[in-house]
Amino acid sequence: MADREQIWVDRIVAGEKRAIARAISAVESSEAAGIALLKRLFLKSGNAYVIGVTGSPGAGKSTLVEKLASEYRDLGRKVGIVAVDPTSPFSGGAILGDRIRMQSLFGDEGVYIRSMATRGHLGGLAPTAHDVVTVLDAAGCGVVLIETVGVGQDEVEVARHADATVLLLVPGMGDDVQTFKAGVMEIADLFVINKADRPGTDRVEQEVTAMLAMSSQRDGWEPRVLRTVATTGEGVSNLRQALDEFRAYGERGSLRHERQREQWRARILEMLRQRLYEKVLTRIPNDVLNSHLADLTEHRRDPHSVVEELISRFCPERQ
Amino acid sequence: MADREQIWVDRIVAGEKRAIARAISAVESSEAAGIALLKRLFLKSGNAYVIGVTGSPGAGKSTLVEKLASEYRDLGRKVGIVAVDPTSPFSGGAILGDRIRMQSLFGDEGVYIRSMATRGHLGGLAPTAHDVVTVLDAAGCGVVLIETVGVGQDEVEVARHADATVLLLVPGMGDDVQTFKAGVMEIADLFVINKADRPGTDRVEQEVTAMLAMSSQRDGWEPRVLRTVATTGEGVSNLRQALDEFRAYGERGSLRHERQREQWRARILEMLRQRLYEKVLTRIPNDVLNSHLADLTEHRRDPHSVVEELISRFCPERQ
Repeated sequence: MADREQIWVDRIVAGEKRAIARAISAVESSEAAGIALLKRLFLKSGNAYVIGVTGSPGAGKSTLVEKLASEYRDLGRKVGIVAVDPTSPFSGGAILGDRIRMQSLFGDEGVYIRSMATRGHLGGLAPTAHDVVTVLDAAGCGVVLIETVGVGQDEVEVARHADATVLLLVPGMGDDVQTFKAGVMEIADLFVINKADRPGTDRVEQEVTAMLAMSSQRDGWEPRVLRTVATTGEGVSNLRQALDEFRAYGERGSLRHERQREQWRARILEMLRQRLYEKVLTRIPNDVLNSHLADLTEHRRDPHSVVEELISRFCPERQ
Repeated sequence: MADREQIWVDRIVAGEKRAIARAISAVESSEAAGIALLKRLFLKSGNAYVIGVTGSPGAGKSTLVEKLASEYRDLGRKVGIVAVDPTSPFSGGAILGDRIRMQSLFGDEGVYIRSMATRGHLGGLAPTAHDVVTVLDAAGCGVVLIETVGVGQDEVEVARHADATVLLLVPGMGDDVQTFKAGVMEIADLFVINKADRPGTDRVEQEVTAMLAMSSQRDGWEPRVLRTVATTGEGVSNLRQALDEFRAYGERGSLRHERQREQWRARILEMLRQRLYEKVLTRIPNDVLNSHLADLTEHRRDPHSVVEELISRFCPERQ
């Protein structure tokens, strides 16, 4: 098995689309094979520039991501796209989405597109999105674009995965800027006013600029406000340049490093919380749990004492 | 300290309002003193009939709970009321709520009302709501009413705490019944159409009845559909009788016991998940975590291996 796994890894690193697709499926299923694969792929990853693109439904995220991908393709980079759909697990929307979106990129051997359903996961980003990014990174994608519908917690999750976060705004959506919570505005490294050929563009720009002036500077980087018309491609080249400048800025100073550390801290602790629980659960024999449940329903023992006992028995501190 | 704690427990069990209020505050703050107190109070609890009342905003939950409490007071029972407000932690709404709601019950020494903010907790019910119920139960409340705004996950949480769950519907809210997810309809033991003097009452009743006919029977109990006009008190006495019949039904067979076991299982596992993580976190030295973070940012080690190592070092299996 180890040999076959190594062949698989080699094919992924060589950029073979079928091997990559199989790897992502294995990773998404959270099976042991997927985790074993990820351990190897992770050591081959770490080169991709991970860009999160978020914004309200209808802001033009897919179109912008498609054009941005083309920009990077023109520079000879391989590009991965992870589109997180807030579709129901039952609709099959995510799978269909792969085929119908971003038509111009199909047939391009240097582009990998994957749609993921959120599967009802609170927070929007599927828990394995980061693992999918690892696969695409190991497969040689110099750029990975993560597209999410931004509705609050999602944007914060995007920022937890991304090297750079782009927040899309559109003119004419009323109090668009005000409705974004402070926490959402704060995660953006670049603000993009898309559909900037529409009336109201100046007003949105003023609002964002005013809001930025009031908020504290983030890691020394002053977030920029750009304009695009994604449908025509106008401004997308500027956005690409700004993204590259942001990356260069982060690498010159400590920003990128500091941010990655904090992202890893959050991610490792979240993984620890989940795995610890799964692990300890498997250690508790059924009869032990059942006897505690009997004590609890009869109010012979209190739940806090029961949990303390379970922890000291099944997750003891090493002496 | 132990003596003072025992005095406190005695005063709570004797039903002294100030001691109860202090106990609930201690419990809500999740401090060590609160947990120590809970351990003692839990052994004195287990007699209350815990009734969850849920429904859309504006369905008349507070008024119904107030009238239902009066019904039980007329029977000589002490009544606890826990109103979970979906208010922001910053608004102070929950504290104000205590004073302005359920005016008719104020001054009654046999009624304890506590509003709790959800504090942004996903799922609506504050994690300590169950502990507050334990205090009220130990204080001699024969009935504890939990009122929540039902918006999905909340109702399921209510059912996890309650011996009986009442779902309030109102006529004239359009597709009210259809908008409740299947999971919400399934948790209700009793359906109450409140404001039943309004047009559309028959239609709502038909809809609920039709939906119940399609859904599988739950634990052998056939959920009832009742009508009330909470503002005038009409039908509240019937509801109280139906609630008592439901309780008697549950105690005759295995329903109540089975349900309590499942509630305790869910609750203990949720507590275990949270406490395990907190406990293990305190065991991990900063320098160990920092060295892992350095490995991760440099992609020298993968996150899955790091988490596995942390678990085997700081939550080892006993030999």
